[in-house]
Amino acid sequence: MEDKLSKIVSLAKRRGFIFPGSEIYGGLANSWDYGHVGNELFNNLASLWWSKFVTERDDMVGVRGTVIMNPKVWEASGHLQSFTDPLIECKICHKRIRADKEEEKLTHEESHNNKKENPIWTEPKNFNLLFKTFIGSVEDQKSAVYLRGELAQTMFTDFKTVLDTNRLKLPFGIAQIGKAFRNEITTGNFIFRTKEFTIAELEYFVKPGEENKYFREWQNFMEEFLTNEIGIKKENLNLYEHPKESLAHYSKGTIDFQYKFPWGWDELWGLASRTDYDLKNHENFSGENLKYKDPETGDEFWPYVVEPTSGLDRLMLAVLLESYSEDEDRVVLKFKPKLAPYKVGIFPLLANKPDLVKKARAIYEGLKKDFEVVWDDRGNIGKRYYSQDEIGTAWCVTIDHQTLEDDTVTVRDRDTMKQGRIKIEELNNYFEERLK
Amino acid sequence: MEDKLSKIVSLAKRRGFIFPGSEIYGGLANSWDYGHVGNELFNNLASLWWSKFVTERDDMVGVRGTVIMNPKVWEASGHLQSFTDPLIECKICHKRIRADKEEEKLTHEESHNNKKENPIWTEPKNFNLLFKTFIGSVEDQKSAVYLRGELAQTMFTDFKTVLDTNRLKLPFGIAQIGKAFRNEITTGNFIFRTKEFTIAELEYFVKPGEENKYFREWQNFMEEFLTNEIGIKKENLNLYEHPKESLAHYSKGTIDFQYKFPWGWDELWGLASRTDYDLKNHENFSGENLKYKDPETGDEFWPYVVEPTSGLDRLMLAVLLESYSEDEDRVVLKFKPKLAPYKVGIFPLLANKPDLVKKARAIYEGLKKDFEVVWDDRGNIGKRYYSQDEIGTAWCVTIDHQTLEDDTVTVRDRDTMKQGRIKIEELNNYFEERLK
Repeated sequence: MEDKLSKIVSLAKRRGFIFPGSEIYGGLANSWDYGHVGNELFNNLASLWWSKFVTERDDMVGVRGTVIMNPKVWEASGHLQSFTDPLIECKICHKRIRADKEEEKLTHEESHNNKKENPIWTEPKNFNLLFKTFIGSVEDQKSAVYLRGELAQTMFTDFKTVLDTNRLKLPFGIAQIGKAFRNEITTGNFIFRTKEFTIAELEYFVKPGEENKYFREWQNFMEEFLTNEIGIKKENLNLYEHPKESLAHYSKGTIDFQYKFPWGWDELWGLASRTDYDLKNHENFSGENLKYKDPETGDEFWPYVVEPTSGLDRLMLAVLLESYSEDEDRVVLKFKPKLAPYKVGIFPLLANKPDLVKKARAIYEGLKKDFEVVWDDRGNIGKRYYSQDEIGTAWCVTIDHQTLEDDTVTVRDRDTMKQGRIKIEELNNYFEERLK
Repeated sequence: MEDKLSKIVSLAKRRGFIFPGSEIYGGLANSWDYGHVGNELFNNLASLWWSKFVTERDDMVGVRGTVIMNPKVWEASGHLQSFTDPLIECKICHKRIRADKEEEKLTHEESHNNKKENPIWTEPKNFNLLFKTFIGSVEDQKSAVYLRGELAQTMFTDFKTVLDTNRLKLPFGIAQIGKAFRNEITTGNFIFRTKEFTIAELEYFVKPGEENKYFREWQNFMEEFLTNEIGIKKENLNLYEHPKESLAHYSKGTIDFQYKFPWGWDELWGLASRTDYDLKNHENFSGENLKYKDPETGDEFWPYVVEPTSGLDRLMLAVLLESYSEDEDRVVLKFKPKLAPYKVGIFPLLANKPDLVKKARAIYEGLKKDFEVVWDDRGNIGKRYYSQDEIGTAWCVTIDHQTLEDDTVTVRDRDTMKQGRIKIEELNNYFEERLK
């Protein structure tokens, strides 16, 4: 199964989905860039999430916050105190590793033993995962600010403004898609754990007492989205509910949505029931009233919060793994068509026949305004199918001699490999219906 | 004219387009968050840009790079040496200000003079605008990395990988939308100059000698986009071409696309002809071959680069200013319908008539999958028009008693305020056609 990951990594690089960032300089700490098809796939995932979780719902609004916020935000949220990994430091070379990584510790000790040195480790010390930088012109603790380690804080600090400007009533949610940054010591497994990543997150505000009901509603909504909309197979998804005794004091429940990654079950998404912990903290720290006033009863209270968190890079990795398939002599990414970087490939049968090329060009132009379309005129048709299958193009359209006579083209389906002739004028509808 | 800016700022806050970030903690250095309608407007601008500049063209591909890159990137690009502002420091209190800000200097001196102190300034020193942070577990210069100050470097460092994986031929371009960060000392004018901002940028690679032709092509393309697609009036746009003698040594031309902001003409977008300066530098620093090999002649060379840069936050500000209008007793944002946060408002005439509400609800649900739609059942219809005009909703649909009899509704156009009755079954087409 680990083998499948290397196949994905190699395909992703070869076809330009994902490749190491700053590669000409030897890369940087497991950071990855997305090429054209990777970026299109990523954008399709993000905008599908936004449609289903925000714009198609009545109870959701969006927000777009900054990466660098007032540092008091992270004091109030508790991140400055406890968003930490325990690290030990080698007293000889000052290398630090995570205290819970026994294997790394042994490997490091050996490297010293080989030089006849006896490494001694310091006691574990907590190391904060927030990236620190300095705002303004002086680099001192007074000007220290942090790159956001999660998105949720915007939804809490902006709670009152969003509530008032959108005239919302409970229950309602505030969503955001954006980058978060964590200075993780241990990164890896391709794009699974990186220092910067994109999250789609929402805080759903409810009346205290109703949190369990909505927790289950979001659990179902997320599961439904992952299976029906994204196409994750049920057997590759596991909902791990944290036992009550392992929860933080303010938490009323946490579920990890685990995906069967090649290295085992691991966290894809999360769902948390956070009570009124965050709003209350921010009210205490800021002195601003962050309560909700019930329009009927006039009661003021802090709503409880249910928090679905969706890692989009992890989702992209799961989608690549889930779609990857080797059928006899081809490699194919069987994305849901709406997620595919390209919906349609356009092939003039022969690249050196101007009338075929002209006809194909007209079809290409006609489709391009409505769909993501790619032109391919190199090599024989079999090779072009192979090449489009590898990047998951949903359909291929071949323009041949018969096209010039009767205005029909061959449409080939990626998954079934079945081919059929269709009138050019029907192409738009044909694809539109299948994308619904 | 400054007055118009305060009106926009106040409307943006009141209706949730844009408001100060971290506001409950007193904000942070001119940082702004976008609320629901602001975020939708922003996303509409970004995706229109992406369609027109990337997916609808044949010669463009996209990329998605990281904010934190290998620091050698910024050494090679020259940013570590020369991406600077000249600052002077007050020897009494160590406050630093930009050496070219005479007024600020005088104000500061006065504040000391009042205390009978004589401030002395240091000589101007260059202050780097890149935000510095530390990767890994040790905070020292060896682990220093930077938040990207522009997006272009990804397109240069990934040039070869993108070229190979997409089998591209000159001329072609690589585009990216993302956040950039600059530790500017002087920020201001609302969202015009902030420390973090979103850029849509592309590097267009051409054969040396063809750069002037493509420079003019992109100039026209950008102007066309701003006027026809976005709706910026020609008289509010000025193309300022930098005189040859003021250009950097490697530059073959720069145009500022200036917009008539309330405080005067100021830079909205930019277009630069950068020769082979960047690719050559990165080849020298990295030792990797970043040349293009002509498939016909076999010649290897560094392509020349034409670089259109589009600030999306500035564009949003220009769109708000451009759309703002006071007609008699209403305030209206006359966005192009495709840019409007909401396309359609749905009004049941009376909120307490279940049959009207039910009918309206069905129409709402029917439109919601295809358009951004908003429900409004509060107050009289006039008030609701007023409220939707203020956020630029393109059309309003009222469901009244006649609707129950003949399945027609009143559609009211935001700009003309004209109303007409339309059959419910025709609504979808009606809006779709007008959005094309």
